[in-house]
Amino acid sequence: MNTDEQAIRDLVAKWINASMDGDVETILDLIAEDAVFHGAGREPFGKEAFAQSFRRGLEQVRMEVRSELSEVEVAGDLAYLRNHLWVTLIPRGGGVPMKRVGYALTILRKLTDGKWVLSRDANMLTADTSA
Amino acid sequence: MNTDEQAIRDLVAKWINASMDGDVETILDLIAEDAVFHGAGREPFGKEAFAQSFRRGLEQVRMEVRSELSEVEVAGDLAYLRNHLWVTLIPRGGGVPMKRVGYALTILRKLTDGKWVLSRDANMLTADTSA
Repeated sequence: MNTDEQAIRDLVAKWINASMDGDVETILDLIAEDAVFHGAGREPFGKEAFAQSFRRGLEQVRMEVRSELSEVEVAGDLAYLRNHLWVTLIPRGGGVPMKRVGYALTILRKLTDGKWVLSRDANMLTADTSA
Repeated sequence: MNTDEQAIRDLVAKWINASMDGDVETILDLIAEDAVFHGAGREPFGKEAFAQSFRRGLEQVRMEVRSELSEVEVAGDLAYLRNHLWVTLIPRGGGVPMKRVGYALTILRKLTDGKWVLSRDANMLTADTSA
């Protein structure tokens, strides 16, 4: 595994741990300023809207995340990954946890200082009705 | 606009025209053998499953497709695009057309002969309830 691929796998691990810790600042540091997030049934949105939505969510729930990287592919300063994700949102005030499952297809970019950041994201998670 | 970006824009135009013409073979020629298609709420699938599903669909409906490319980005032999799509499925036997709208995030790859093909696809279209 080359250095870039390892850096990208480390980014994913860091993102997931920060999600579970509710550490928004660490996550924002992994996102390009001009990032674009896509999801089914909604308009694309940017880093600031992601941050607002994430912060609002954290007031209501904490997250448990399991991830299996299906693929990481690097070409120069561009890379993509496919990630199989299982997310459980646990209401802080008690109540029934909500499960979401599915894949993300993510584009990453290497900045001039050598650091990889998330650049484009396609989130295809839906309610997990299997359990 | 460089040659690669133009080739990718031509691929998208060709794909959309072939979709509207019901020309499956032309579309399959634009897809890498190891392509992976993702959508919300379903397992990923490959080129053969795409072909079967497309052929089955064509027996029932014809398609009208409008596309606005939001972005095309090339890095060596890898590229990605974001495409805003409006699809109308018109039942061949009559009946109410079904509209779908949304974005696709697509990874493309340049083959050794210089030809670009679709390699990974995240389809985030949902039922269009706006009309």
